[in-house]
Amino acid sequence: MSFEILSRSRAFGGTQLVCRHASRETGTAMRFAAFVPPQAEGGRKVPVVWFLSGLTCTEENFTVKAGAQRIAAELGLMLVAPDTSPRGEGVPDDAEGAYDFGLGAGFYVDATEAPWARHYRMKSYVEAELPALVAQELPADMDRQGITGHSMGGHGALTIALRAPERFRAVSAFAPIVSPMTCPWGEKALAGYLGPDRAAWRAYDACALIEDGARLPELLVDQGTADTFLTRELKPELLEEACRKAGIALTLRRQEGYDHSYFFIATFIEDHLRWHAARLG
Amino acid sequence: MSFEILSRSRAFGGTQLVCRHASRETGTAMRFAAFVPPQAEGGRKVPVVWFLSGLTCTEENFTVKAGAQRIAAELGLMLVAPDTSPRGEGVPDDAEGAYDFGLGAGFYVDATEAPWARHYRMKSYVEAELPALVAQELPADMDRQGITGHSMGGHGALTIALRAPERFRAVSAFAPIVSPMTCPWGEKALAGYLGPDRAAWRAYDACALIEDGARLPELLVDQGTADTFLTRELKPELLEEACRKAGIALTLRRQEGYDHSYFFIATFIEDHLRWHAARLG
Repeated sequence: MSFEILSRSRAFGGTQLVCRHASRETGTAMRFAAFVPPQAEGGRKVPVVWFLSGLTCTEENFTVKAGAQRIAAELGLMLVAPDTSPRGEGVPDDAEGAYDFGLGAGFYVDATEAPWARHYRMKSYVEAELPALVAQELPADMDRQGITGHSMGGHGALTIALRAPERFRAVSAFAPIVSPMTCPWGEKALAGYLGPDRAAWRAYDACALIEDGARLPELLVDQGTADTFLTRELKPELLEEACRKAGIALTLRRQEGYDHSYFFIATFIEDHLRWHAARLG
Repeated sequence: MSFEILSRSRAFGGTQLVCRHASRETGTAMRFAAFVPPQAEGGRKVPVVWFLSGLTCTEENFTVKAGAQRIAAELGLMLVAPDTSPRGEGVPDDAEGAYDFGLGAGFYVDATEAPWARHYRMKSYVEAELPALVAQELPADMDRQGITGHSMGGHGALTIALRAPERFRAVSAFAPIVSPMTCPWGEKALAGYLGPDRAAWRAYDACALIEDGARLPELLVDQGTADTFLTRELKPELLEEACRKAGIALTLRRQEGYDHSYFFIATFIEDHLRWHAARLG
């Protein structure tokens, strides 16, 4: 198990890597980006924060647009940003090429329906295969992991952490899809990848997971009030209500006038990484 | 004279605009990006720093990749990033579609050769037309301007400032082409846009301008030592020598291990904007 380094750039005294490896889970070549902070030079292990990206993204968007390396370099955090779906020859895509299903839209699930089940295994890829690779090949302290993400990737971060709360010391999200079972993006994706039985969808819905007993000690969520997807797709009030009922300490910050873009993420990534660093020790 | 706002995003308490307007100089629709810091809310005028981009770029690259808005918001600086060439129907491009001439490669010159002379008027556009538009439509204090840029845009920043030193209180560059007359990128561009008479090129060559008597009080230049274009295209030692002979206070920082990418710019943009802010009052 190893990876090929596609590019290596100095950034803020650390190293930004873009890597490719043959994934057993997806059956494709997968890319990911990893920022190794200066504190890890010489192989000293540092905490890891995972960033899961949203619809249409690859490993590149967060890596070049969020400005996160500056803060990660200060705080001594490794950042790992996976791609959002399998890609390449033989990987099926949405029949109409829609942006919200298929390529760039893996939704962090293990698909069970044909023709998706063969390659669309982003849950197992992001939860198990890629962490094992990172642990083996990079100076990552896997006892100190945090996870965050944006939109579809916020959904990914919340659900992955809710299913494995012992693995993450810090969890946050930017404008997450908090309940894919109750929004158009999510209903299309979960029906497509998992089939019509909505019981099977609950493991991929942050609010349903909480209703079904999953717990996290605390959560940080930022949501722009000028986000065009706010009322139809994101619905932070559902997470607010689920956390209230479950006694989960949710810090939900409604950021006045901010939209769904990386300008929003870039503005608040510093707060999130400081939140993570404070909990990763 | 006015512009259309293509997008408006909140960022770091300020506003990131992407604008389009009909340019008299280029005879095309031109785009530019402008970050208006929070200090300018309510119309109070703030200093302006121009960022000129390199080959293949548009107004977008610096805007989404450099992370400059954070510092501009802190320091109260407006940032304006123009496109790098005219674009659109009827605008000629390099015959082989090369990245280093034609579209995305205007080199901040007013072309005199056919077929370029009609649209490739980036000198007059960036020096006069766009500043007049910015002065009229945005809360920019035109008595307090700084200019910087990257690679081809570093060349643009240096040559524009050397031809109009009274206009800029601060000038810096990232990995600039310091002498297009003596590198392959520059020789191709200047011959193509200006014809074979090398005397006409001197107004577009920072080192030649300094040899011919142009002066700036001081300059800040960052250059990565792992930049693949360093020895063939960029040649900072030529600027070092020209400044030494002319008594120009050049701060040339060779940044160990940094390449030509926006990771390099993102790492050092804070130093540059603080340098500008200190001189813009």
